Amino acid sequence: MSLIENLEWRYATKKMNGAKVPQEKLDYILEAARLAPSSSGLQPYKIIVISDRVLLEKIKVIANNQSQITDCSHLLVFAAWDQYTRERVSKVFNYIMHERSLPPTAMSDYKESILNLYATEGKEWEAHHAAKQSYISFAMAIAAAAEQKVDATPMEGFDSTAMDELLQLKGCGYKSTVILPLGYRDEDEDWLLNMKKVRAPKPDFITEMTLADAVNLTDAR
Amino acid sequence: MSLIENLEWRYATKKMNGAKVPQEKLDYILEAARLAPSSSGLQPYKIIVISDRVLLEKIKVIANNQSQITDCSHLLVFAAWDQYTRERVSKVFNYIMHERSLPPTAMSDYKESILNLYATEGKEWEAHHAAKQSYISFAMAIAAAAEQKVDATPMEGFDSTAMDELLQLKGCGYKSTVILPLGYRDEDEDWLLNMKKVRAPKPDFITEMTLADAVNLTDAR
Repeated sequence: MSLIENLEWRYATKKMNGAKVPQEKLDYILEAARLAPSSSGLQPYKIIVISDRVLLEKIKVIANNQSQITDCSHLLVFAAWDQYTRERVSKVFNYIMHERSLPPTAMSDYKESILNLYATEGKEWEAHHAAKQSYISFAMAIAAAAEQKVDATPMEGFDSTAMDELLQLKGCGYKSTVILPLGYRDEDEDWLLNMKKVRAPKPDFITEMTLADAVNLTDAR
Repeated sequence: MSLIENLEWRYATKKMNGAKVPQEKLDYILEAARLAPSSSGLQPYKIIVISDRVLLEKIKVIANNQSQITDCSHLLVFAAWDQYTRERVSKVFNYIMHERSLPPTAMSDYKESILNLYATEGKEWEAHHAAKQSYISFAMAIAAAAEQKVDATPMEGFDSTAMDELLQLKGCGYKSTVILPLGYRDEDEDWLLNMKKVRAPKPDFITEMTLADAVNLTDAR
């Protein structure tokens, strides 16, 4: 099936049946997330995979008691860097240079330029920037799950401070950004399953713009 | 080809050859972006499609003179809501209720709860939140382009304030978040084409965590 067919098939599953996702499907989803592009290739995030039922019960409490947290097979917690540091950026760039058999200094100028750019924006901006990168990976995991006919529920509704405390992320310089329970829909109990998928109409979502449009808009102000 | 094969095929194309992307492939990419999930289904973003060569020349100047801006076939500019308002949220929820033949009040309590939540976070948070949603759509466009064997370059390197001015986004309550030139690789001139794709090693990227791990980490502090 094509990506569009997979996106039509998927939906934010509201009730899961507790069935287990096979390891090879889980691995496929994680690999798609790992292959996602990110700004400057830094991948300033990682994924924590949780299937421990007791830990999931604890997470459910800080995630508005959403049933998918405990009815899923595996929960993916996306966690992004809380800030960019010279050490973190250098480690990634050194690894890239090593893998490409290039001298470690090949990206030095570029590294300085992005470190300077980030420094002027500040730490809060850096955390948001890293979080945005994690959403690209998150989206690839969603697309991969749909391709594997594994259900998933994109979720922001959790207490991220409590999550960071529970999973000891803060001490490691990470912040939880978004979570994705993976599992299988409960076809009898999921109220959303047979609801129409609604998206913004194309004319509202897509605007073709020419220079004349921009100029006309300026004139109209 | 599978999503993973497509993600292996794609790369951040550094030099494009100016060839045109057929309309049906462009439409496919935009449709995948439109089908992306977003928080509460609000889709707080839209896509501006630009192929006007004079407008692209103006954009190139505010995008570090990156050649893909003018060597691409079409440039997608993702623009997110600068804030959530009662009017915007109501319009989307009313449309969803209409499309699902539900009473307009069916989501009233939910609407109030998210408006309250957003209000406590503040306008800057709202803009970041909307921007993050746009990255999910952006990722689906990247995956769709790869599936269509259309090259693309995910780009944050542009002056978003100048872009918002040029495309008159600010007056419409939008902020440009990220851009995606679509086109075809110049196989002779692209220095990145034959470089190894490097991603974080799996053990660094994926952490399996149990309750015992969390408890042990706590003890170790």
